[in-house]
Amino acid sequence: MKYSVTITLKKDVLDPQGKVVQNTLSNLGMTNLKSIRQGKFFEIDIDENDSKKAENLIVEMCEKLLANLIIEDYKINKLK
Amino acid sequence: MKYSVTITLKKDVLDPQGKVVQNTLSNLGMTNLKSIRQGKFFEIDIDENDSKKAENLIVEMCEKLLANLIIEDYKINKLK
Repeated sequence: MKYSVTITLKKDVLDPQGKVVQNTLSNLGMTNLKSIRQGKFFEIDIDENDSKKAENLIVEMCEKLLANLIIEDYKINKLK
Repeated sequence: MKYSVTITLKKDVLDPQGKVVQNTLSNLGMTNLKSIRQGKFFEIDIDENDSKKAENLIVEMCEKLLANLIIEDYKINKLK
């Protein structure tokens, strides 16, 4: 089963990397850009046919390794 | 208008960062992990009410700065 996971910084956490991208885009002439925030994206292929079990495993991966829960949120999506 | 952009490595491009994550997860006991690939994620808020124009701007951002089209693909999603 395939899942995608997106990991984003929590709302109140500063995003210096996103800020640099934003400034660069402004310098390229994109003046109507309001904000841009950067996160991480994972495409995970897992060998488990029970979708409940698979989702639990993905959650475990996120909490143990992929996301830093103090400053980041994660969102899991099932891909077909 | 808000858009999300996910940038992933093309299929045939090696993903050393994803490989490290995969090995680490295996070492944590996730033996039924088939593959994991890492990408980038952007949340973009743009000051443009015409959705066609907004999308064109996002495409321009991707092609000019966010994605390296030689090795990466990008996907644009509209958020409500």
